[in-house]
Amino acid sequence: MARPTPLSGFPEWLPAERAVETYVLDTLRRTFELHGFAGIETRAVEPVEELLRKGETSKEVYVVSRLQGEEDGPQERRLGLHFDLTVPLARYVLEHAGKLVFPFKRYQIQKVWRGERPQEGRFREFTQADVDVVGAETLPFHYEVELPLVMAEALAALPIPPVRIAVNNRKIAEGFYTGIGLTDVDAALRAIDKLAKIGPDAVAELLRSDAGATAEQARQALELAAISGTDASVADRVRALGVTNDLLEEGLGELVALVEAASRRVPDTVVADLSIARGLDYYTGSVYETTLVGHEDLGSICSGGRYDSLASDGTRTYPGVGLSIGVSRLVARILGAGLATASRAVPTAVLVAVANEEARGLSNDVAAALRARGIPTDVAPTAAKFGRQIRHADRLGIPYVWFPGTDGHEVKDIRSGEQVPADPATWTPPQEDLTITVQRT
Amino acid sequence: MARPTPLSGFPEWLPAERAVETYVLDTLRRTFELHGFAGIETRAVEPVEELLRKGETSKEVYVVSRLQGEEDGPQERRLGLHFDLTVPLARYVLEHAGKLVFPFKRYQIQKVWRGERPQEGRFREFTQADVDVVGAETLPFHYEVELPLVMAEALAALPIPPVRIAVNNRKIAEGFYTGIGLTDVDAALRAIDKLAKIGPDAVAELLRSDAGATAEQARQALELAAISGTDASVADRVRALGVTNDLLEEGLGELVALVEAASRRVPDTVVADLSIARGLDYYTGSVYETTLVGHEDLGSICSGGRYDSLASDGTRTYPGVGLSIGVSRLVARILGAGLATASRAVPTAVLVAVANEEARGLSNDVAAALRARGIPTDVAPTAAKFGRQIRHADRLGIPYVWFPGTDGHEVKDIRSGEQVPADPATWTPPQEDLTITVQRT
Repeated sequence: MARPTPLSGFPEWLPAERAVETYVLDTLRRTFELHGFAGIETRAVEPVEELLRKGETSKEVYVVSRLQGEEDGPQERRLGLHFDLTVPLARYVLEHAGKLVFPFKRYQIQKVWRGERPQEGRFREFTQADVDVVGAETLPFHYEVELPLVMAEALAALPIPPVRIAVNNRKIAEGFYTGIGLTDVDAALRAIDKLAKIGPDAVAELLRSDAGATAEQARQALELAAISGTDASVADRVRALGVTNDLLEEGLGELVALVEAASRRVPDTVVADLSIARGLDYYTGSVYETTLVGHEDLGSICSGGRYDSLASDGTRTYPGVGLSIGVSRLVARILGAGLATASRAVPTAVLVAVANEEARGLSNDVAAALRARGIPTDVAPTAAKFGRQIRHADRLGIPYVWFPGTDGHEVKDIRSGEQVPADPATWTPPQEDLTITVQRT
Repeated sequence: MARPTPLSGFPEWLPAERAVETYVLDTLRRTFELHGFAGIETRAVEPVEELLRKGETSKEVYVVSRLQGEEDGPQERRLGLHFDLTVPLARYVLEHAGKLVFPFKRYQIQKVWRGERPQEGRFREFTQADVDVVGAETLPFHYEVELPLVMAEALAALPIPPVRIAVNNRKIAEGFYTGIGLTDVDAALRAIDKLAKIGPDAVAELLRSDAGATAEQARQALELAAISGTDASVADRVRALGVTNDLLEEGLGELVALVEAASRRVPDTVVADLSIARGLDYYTGSVYETTLVGHEDLGSICSGGRYDSLASDGTRTYPGVGLSIGVSRLVARILGAGLATASRAVPTAVLVAVANEEARGLSNDVAAALRARGIPTDVAPTAAKFGRQIRHADRLGIPYVWFPGTDGHEVKDIRSGEQVPADPATWTPPQEDLTITVQRT
């Protein structure tokens, strides 16, 4: 085989890079579990017709088929790879509803696939980390406050710059638009969603052409979208626009409750931003978008919202609220911008040298004794000159080389060169050398 | 959506079942890292022509294609989902050889997909956990001893019955067959591989018809395959068959070195079994197969071997040795046979009760204090009667319910009913209640 070339859109990491990704995933998992979310995985495939139900033709689905599957009977359903973890969650909840306890709090960290055009430089395979709470028939509002705060805590624990979580509430836009007589709420939201990209004049034009707005309605919608802030004054400024509507008032109450709880529990992180629309039409309450400060070009790294009907089986409806972190994009930026690095490429804390192949058993015994006490240990591949064995450790970033002896052992910190007598039954490296650590750079 | 039905061959676990799988995966990872293996992941897809290179038409490949991909240019390569982690490893090593340190020790835990006929009851999507060591040009024999011992240690740490690792060495069969004048070694191995399934008479017939053996040669090959044991006497019994050959002698030396090291480091686990052939023709030295004692019907749960040419780029050849655990099949048996269960379905150790919705902030503060000290904590979904809140904890297996109060807190162990005063800044549950534990049943 000639040397293979990478496949565009399918990121793959070298060991030291994967160590950074693993650290990110472990940190997310730890935070999710501290908050009581149960981890699940769903199968990678769903029936194609289910993947296309939401009408999201913008998401390109990868269809899977058996190479030698000509003999498949008609009972075989056409399958596609999931493009997010929300569609699978909805199906999982319906399929297993009888065996789940509601509200069902789950986290899910898995690969997803989107058949994007390769020339657009987007990932076709990437990892998402989702948290959702799903209720049976009802889901209290307080989860709309807690979920973004869980994500704020999870993101704060990562080796990345601070994040800014922009929040809004669909009830505000819907109530406000209704209050000013704009009836096509979805079209208006789709227009507002383009504000950052095309600017207010073009959005005003879209509101008139696509959402049937008058010039005055467009002006009012843009005034609403211009409001942002971190406390109750946001609601006052909306009210000052002079529109009254019950749904609007309900949304303002929820938005204020969210930003006030956030400013207490994760200060300087959550901002009410009334221009946040989120393209998807299934959100019905709070919506969230997260940017990495100084890396706004990345787009939203963690988004989500409240949906009154995540799933329904005709008898029961399952409302939910959740957010999803685009882990691969985030890790690609951490690595690409050098935001953090792993202390070494391998888990190994100690490399046990081998004096000669006949003495390999002695080195294996030392390694076994260290591993039995939780110290990741490897044994030199060959009984080369000690200088070469030390160089092997150095190339992998292994901090210690152990020299066994029948009349006593020594261990060398190859960074400082310090070499001291040591007992495999008791010697322990400092905590910071025990496992791979990942540090902001 | 009506209630969805499961897709045959795509296993999916409920939260308490997934907790068992997570425990298995965490335990494997911990053991692999203790031995200095670096974790990597490879993309889920490979070019179809690479997946089919080994001529393994028995492995059904899932091809992926974009649903709306009609406009793809000819530069788009046809992609398939990987059916194991060995083909991707070979490609990864070739692609990144310049940036890897050899010998390259890696573990990889990922989903693989095989388009098996659904009626055969096999998994179409399952998780494998592989360890391999890959050398550049050379790879010392001692890794053929160490790799199965790493797996023995990893499997011994799982909540499963003891395992039996049967080992053999391709050099023995090849040397022996050459020594008795049997030239089609691969055909002879394929026949011997069927021994357990079709018995010695049918294998003798196959040796004659497919491998060109005389009746005497078939008899000798079956005599070799009948030998097994756990020490050097195995080699003596092979030599007693009266065949001399340098390759045979080399293989016997390696096999004895392996079983002797194993009996010292993982007693009663590794057995030399000269009937082990392993179907695949790329093995060139040690081969391994593992059965779960009392669950032999499962087949091999962990297999592998030495291959002198895992990959080659025309300039350099990369020999390797590795084993692969079929995690999903193992977990399905653990769950199906009730070999082990998780202590609870959620990570949560403490559920903080909510006296009334106005006091939810106080409950959130208690939860935050406990989480800050690493105690997985949830807050009751609603301010229902305390009896209902306790029942919610009980249904999820959460051991403690916390009752906050402005003039003092109490925590109840809902298993014993014992309720005691507690301080959120200092109270800690016993270690065994802190996280989900998985116990043999």
